[in-house]
Amino acid sequence: MGGQLAEVTLAYETYGELNAARDNAVLICHALSGDSHVAQHDEADDPGWWDIVVGPGKAIDTRRYFVICANLLGGCRGSTGPGSVNPATGKPFGRDFPTITVGDMVAAQRGLLDQLGIERLLAVVGGSLGGQQALVWGTRYSDRVRGVVALATSARLTSQGLAFDVVGRNAILRDPHFHGGRYYDRPQGPKVGLALARMIGHITYLSREAMREKFEADRLKPRDVAIEFEKRFSVGSYLGYQGAKFVERFDANSYLTLSIAMDLFDLGVTAAELTAAFRPTRARWLVISFSSDWLFPPEQSRDIVNALIANNAPVSYCEVQSPCGHDAFLLPHDLDRYGEMIRAFLDQLTPAPHAAPAARGEAYGPTSIFYQHRLDYERIAELVPPGASVLDLGCGSGTFLAGLRATNHRRLVGVELDEQKILTGIGRGLDIIQADLNRGLGAFADGQFDCVILSQTLQAVQDVERVLTEMVRIGRTCIVSIPNFGYHRLRTMLAETGRAPKSAGVLHYEWYNTPNIRFFTIADFEDFCRQKGIRVHRRIALDTETKAEVFEHPNLNADLAIFVISRT
Amino acid sequence: MGGQLAEVTLAYETYGELNAARDNAVLICHALSGDSHVAQHDEADDPGWWDIVVGPGKAIDTRRYFVICANLLGGCRGSTGPGSVNPATGKPFGRDFPTITVGDMVAAQRGLLDQLGIERLLAVVGGSLGGQQALVWGTRYSDRVRGVVALATSARLTSQGLAFDVVGRNAILRDPHFHGGRYYDRPQGPKVGLALARMIGHITYLSREAMREKFEADRLKPRDVAIEFEKRFSVGSYLGYQGAKFVERFDANSYLTLSIAMDLFDLGVTAAELTAAFRPTRARWLVISFSSDWLFPPEQSRDIVNALIANNAPVSYCEVQSPCGHDAFLLPHDLDRYGEMIRAFLDQLTPAPHAAPAARGEAYGPTSIFYQHRLDYERIAELVPPGASVLDLGCGSGTFLAGLRATNHRRLVGVELDEQKILTGIGRGLDIIQADLNRGLGAFADGQFDCVILSQTLQAVQDVERVLTEMVRIGRTCIVSIPNFGYHRLRTMLAETGRAPKSAGVLHYEWYNTPNIRFFTIADFEDFCRQKGIRVHRRIALDTETKAEVFEHPNLNADLAIFVISRT
Repeated sequence: MGGQLAEVTLAYETYGELNAARDNAVLICHALSGDSHVAQHDEADDPGWWDIVVGPGKAIDTRRYFVICANLLGGCRGSTGPGSVNPATGKPFGRDFPTITVGDMVAAQRGLLDQLGIERLLAVVGGSLGGQQALVWGTRYSDRVRGVVALATSARLTSQGLAFDVVGRNAILRDPHFHGGRYYDRPQGPKVGLALARMIGHITYLSREAMREKFEADRLKPRDVAIEFEKRFSVGSYLGYQGAKFVERFDANSYLTLSIAMDLFDLGVTAAELTAAFRPTRARWLVISFSSDWLFPPEQSRDIVNALIANNAPVSYCEVQSPCGHDAFLLPHDLDRYGEMIRAFLDQLTPAPHAAPAARGEAYGPTSIFYQHRLDYERIAELVPPGASVLDLGCGSGTFLAGLRATNHRRLVGVELDEQKILTGIGRGLDIIQADLNRGLGAFADGQFDCVILSQTLQAVQDVERVLTEMVRIGRTCIVSIPNFGYHRLRTMLAETGRAPKSAGVLHYEWYNTPNIRFFTIADFEDFCRQKGIRVHRRIALDTETKAEVFEHPNLNADLAIFVISRT
Repeated sequence: MGGQLAEVTLAYETYGELNAARDNAVLICHALSGDSHVAQHDEADDPGWWDIVVGPGKAIDTRRYFVICANLLGGCRGSTGPGSVNPATGKPFGRDFPTITVGDMVAAQRGLLDQLGIERLLAVVGGSLGGQQALVWGTRYSDRVRGVVALATSARLTSQGLAFDVVGRNAILRDPHFHGGRYYDRPQGPKVGLALARMIGHITYLSREAMREKFEADRLKPRDVAIEFEKRFSVGSYLGYQGAKFVERFDANSYLTLSIAMDLFDLGVTAAELTAAFRPTRARWLVISFSSDWLFPPEQSRDIVNALIANNAPVSYCEVQSPCGHDAFLLPHDLDRYGEMIRAFLDQLTPAPHAAPAARGEAYGPTSIFYQHRLDYERIAELVPPGASVLDLGCGSGTFLAGLRATNHRRLVGVELDEQKILTGIGRGLDIIQADLNRGLGAFADGQFDCVILSQTLQAVQDVERVLTEMVRIGRTCIVSIPNFGYHRLRTMLAETGRAPKSAGVLHYEWYNTPNIRFFTIADFEDFCRQKGIRVHRRIALDTETKAEVFEHPNLNADLAIFVISRT
């Protein structure tokens, strides 16, 4: 794009050992202002920018993985950038440095791998601009990477994010010391402009909540720092200090180069464009967003996930509930979730996963395929055709799916809301996608799965009609298990004692705190199917106490029923 | 604060006629970059900044009200500001202009009213910084204003908003053409810095959604405008143009002065501080926020409302669902809600409201005090002690409260979620506060109301325990009406036909779409009260078909019950 570089230098650092099979390499891609020093090499070393994640025993465990991190092309920490000498002129490139793209950065990283003799990465991991590099790896060089971890990123910056970048660049470009980018041999560069750009950036990296936490109590007590910026408010002294510090270690031309690359990054804006962009992928994916990130908001991660789903690509997704804003992936606050998800995901990419046996073991039992006995699980498992692709709605930690895997099913995907359950599911090597059943199923295509499961969940669903309609759209066959409020004991409870029906098991709640907000019987469900044009292929009615199938008057004698249904 | 002004000039404009009683004056306070020209004076006149709201027949109807709008003290459109000549030096004040506060601005406006001979305003209306002025009017000069309308504002800027202001000011202060504020006699002022500040401001006035709408489709097609800012992206050309245009009409020193006043504005941060700040108010309030406003986010308006509630001040509140961000109050998109709420509120402030008779009429009938006959309304109304203060949870459009007003109740407040119903309620002269019953009742004090009502709403409540606990905390007496699922017909439906109970009236929904998610009987409710230490003083069981009270086996024979309860 707009020029060529004859030769490129990449400064990089490595951690851990490349194994004999050369298949344990993890490439970490840094964000706008990072560099190759992702972690300390030893205790005497300077801190790295991701010490909390990378190191011996950490989520990205350098005792297991060979970690590589290179300073970005266009950067100013050793790799070729605008401050490097242009061989054609013998002077720094300055604004003659070509406009580069995220793709160019990744192409340079690929060259580095060639030189290191690494054919295929175990994984690429990156957040923010680093996440965008990970997206390029996973789509353009998918044959060279087994897994992709994309954190707090997007396929295309929001217009709001872009707007902040524009203002930051204008501050640099209009700084009288910028001199069209030829400031390297002058006493002063565009320090004020670069500091202003950094201040704006800093605000966008934090959430409103995080800023309140940090500055509200002592709003009018600025820190005593030697800066030439407004120091009336504590947040001002903080930003001024951050801006002034940044100028010492970063080059304004690099800032322009990298921020333009980020702004130009664009895998598409419509669902169709994004689906096409992710079509080439052969990697396994983990996508993580943070609830309070407004620079790379969760809906953008969901767009990525939806495009992966549309391509039937293996993907897990979680929006981590965090108050920390965009910076969350750099902070310890939510490490127990995003860090552990990365750990579990990487572990499941290796041929012999560490954690898996334990997690799997949980799911099997001597007489049942499940330890945690759920009568309907067994019967549903029997109903799933061998080798079918299966989508489990409200999958919990994946117990049912993990059980199914033993019987050779080719594609198992779960949908779940709870973070902790998603983490456990990822640790089982499953693809778990975080979504609200009431409105999050639109990404799945018509007939995308052989079999869609909804086990003992319908009674807790707000939008019953939507969920069932979506279900029979997505699954060629669907299996629904429901508690039957027409069960004679429950009828008696209302009819004779005048109390709201409740029972042990899934119905053990009180009327005022039960998550079960839909009250219906087998007959009601069958009516519903008839009215809505849903075909019932089979009904299995069960008495969970005797564990026996009920053939006589199921609406009276069964407390649980399983239906096999489909769109007519 | 930091200096005094011997004499102050305020430039102002008026619209409409001051009536003989001199009680129809509405003061409009403008925001950071506004001025006194709030609306066109006639068709030949320049557009005003709030033409959509102010004018003949508009929400602030200049045929009924005498509208006043003054350029702010510290501004640059005719009122005394940093660009005015300092009588002490004969030169413009520049940075010698004292630091002024929102309080100073309002004090100057008060002086204007004195000169105009207006003892008491009908209302003060303002958004953003204008809203902060309205807050000062309503607390400091409460005897001089009947009603206060505060839109998209806060009692104290967020740290995030403050941070953006700091960066904008730094851009101005560090512009080499700023010259310590003494640029008036120089060929060029700090144009670049002021433009950058304006660009940042502009981004914060729009929502992410609004920016996507505006710029996403043609991201790479900048407008062809003659600006010296980056024009690579369409959003860049827009911001650059806005920045360049602003510089032509605004003075950088005024910008600094007004933005510092906004940043220093602080009525308190804790609930206790805010409650103390609002204690002096005697005015009636309308507070409106906009859901996508992230510069003055809705939770800050709610803080104001909570402080008013704590002082038993009459207040209505609505968070208007809007995609337009902070600018929403200036745009036509949501005018049908915020504009109409202002209209209804102002109307109810006048001694002889226009709209009221119609709205009230709706609530009365010949044989009942309600046209829309609701059996429990009548019975509940009878149970409310004469003259009691009443809080109606889930009040709808205020039919019940409007009915009560006829019987001389001193304070009637409703809580409701639906915007349209809130608007109708305000039009009836009621105080309606938007809140979610499940978590929005914390602002009400223990025993704040003589009587709290929850009529046929409990069955749709998620957090039953919390709502009932809050209710008996707030009300000395509480009245709850509930549908009885123990009613014999409903029992029969389940027992004999095996179908989920449903009936006409409030229970006419199907099991899969009913908003009624709690299924319980009179006996269940009584059990609950016993368990949770809630005392039941009285129970009235009703058969709504025969309209008769049920004395025998109410749990079987009544379909509706009313309870008078309290904390033990």
